[in-house]
Amino acid sequence: LATDAFMDRIGLDDAARTSRGRSLFTLEAHINYLHEIKEGTAVRVEASVLAFDAKRVHLYMEMFADEGTEPIAASEQMLLHVDTTNGAKSAVFDADIAGRIEAMCRDASKEARYAGRVIGLPSGSRTPAATKPA
Amino acid sequence: LATDAFMDRIGLDDAARTSRGRSLFTLEAHINYLHEIKEGTAVRVEASVLAFDAKRVHLYMEMFADEGTEPIAASEQMLLHVDTTNGAKSAVFDADIAGRIEAMCRDASKEARYAGRVIGLPSGSRTPAATKPA
Repeated sequence: LATDAFMDRIGLDDAARTSRGRSLFTLEAHINYLHEIKEGTAVRVEASVLAFDAKRVHLYMEMFADEGTEPIAASEQMLLHVDTTNGAKSAVFDADIAGRIEAMCRDASKEARYAGRVIGLPSGSRTPAATKPA
Repeated sequence: LATDAFMDRIGLDDAARTSRGRSLFTLEAHINYLHEIKEGTAVRVEASVLAFDAKRVHLYMEMFADEGTEPIAASEQMLLHVDTTNGAKSAVFDADIAGRIEAMCRDASKEARYAGRVIGLPSGSRTPAATKPA
């Protein structure tokens, strides 16, 4: 849903996806669940473009509850632009779309606090090497 | 859903979660969408425990279509054991549950090919620093 809002913003809304035969597929997603919120709480999402190339966008999003200033969740995603008329093969962004992605990337000033993370426990936790009998 | 299967396997099935007042919350998840499959394709999931400590499990899963040998998706997650009777505060695993987690961790021989990844585009892609006017 937040990805839909991003697609709307760069000009790939539902109508454009259909008429152009293009869409964005998620290749990879990383989500941090930071705080619980009550069901039904209104949320807002702030999205920024961390990087892009001819066919891919590295998108970063933070979700906030109501007027909160601390994110309740954060996500980064690698999205691939595909031609849905041709078996969903990867495709170069149209110029107008690429222009809007570039503008979002240029405007991305905020620190992406939860991007670039690797999932793991601190050393000292139990791992297969540590739990296997000698 | 795959996490539910894991909870069943370590003895935290739906009935146990209710009677013990315990559950697992996802703190962080990383998903790789590797291949598309047709809607309705039967899939199987292989799960392994990469590491654990007193309250947390680092779970790794690969999803396969039918008899396929190449994963169609992979996911790693950091799960926190919580006491749902006490405002979902983190809680130490019960001994029987911890024993099953340890056994899964000991048995984890397979390489976790998609674990430990950082999301990013190769250098040379456009980033805020590269797109900002001088």
